[in-house]
Amino acid sequence: MLDHLEDINKAFESKARLGIMSVLTVNDEADFNTLKDWLNLTDGNLASHTRALENIGYIVAEKKFEGRKPKTSYSATTQGKKAFQAHLQALESFIKSNL
Amino acid sequence: MLDHLEDINKAFESKARLGIMSVLTVNDEADFNTLKDWLNLTDGNLASHTRALENIGYIVAEKKFEGRKPKTSYSATTQGKKAFQAHLQALESFIKSNL
Repeated sequence: MLDHLEDINKAFESKARLGIMSVLTVNDEADFNTLKDWLNLTDGNLASHTRALENIGYIVAEKKFEGRKPKTSYSATTQGKKAFQAHLQALESFIKSNL
Repeated sequence: MLDHLEDINKAFESKARLGIMSVLTVNDEADFNTLKDWLNLTDGNLASHTRALENIGYIVAEKKFEGRKPKTSYSATTQGKKAFQAHLQALESFIKSNL
């Protein structure tokens, strides 16, 4: 019943982080405002989650300029993608033993 | 890709809460120390999660005495069980579209 619970990665516990990783698994990169709109998050909320995921090396941020406007783009690292897949698999196993 | 994300219930975001609901779905009730041992949580950590789940009506606590020793037992409410199942189903759908 509690098997697989220990494989659930605390870094991905929140809905916001699941969403960020999901977007960055399917898309090579996404900028701050796109993530914000798609995930329906506030600036502060998204920034705190992207910072946390950057700090553990699961995503990287790149500052670019679009004309004179700065733009931050995020992409998932190989390590981040692997960790996210492992997390989804652990969740899946947990769910199977609970549904 | 982000379908189903909105059905994920923030009340169950943490590993600890998934564990508590899992134990209380399979068992009619579980006391504080059993939950603590099974889920490998500290007193304070478990207490804060059970309190949060109590406050939203997903679990109920009952104080009993075992001889002269007080003992708190928890059980899931019907509403809590339904919400947990719905959460697992939303997670499952989210995972399917991401794996």
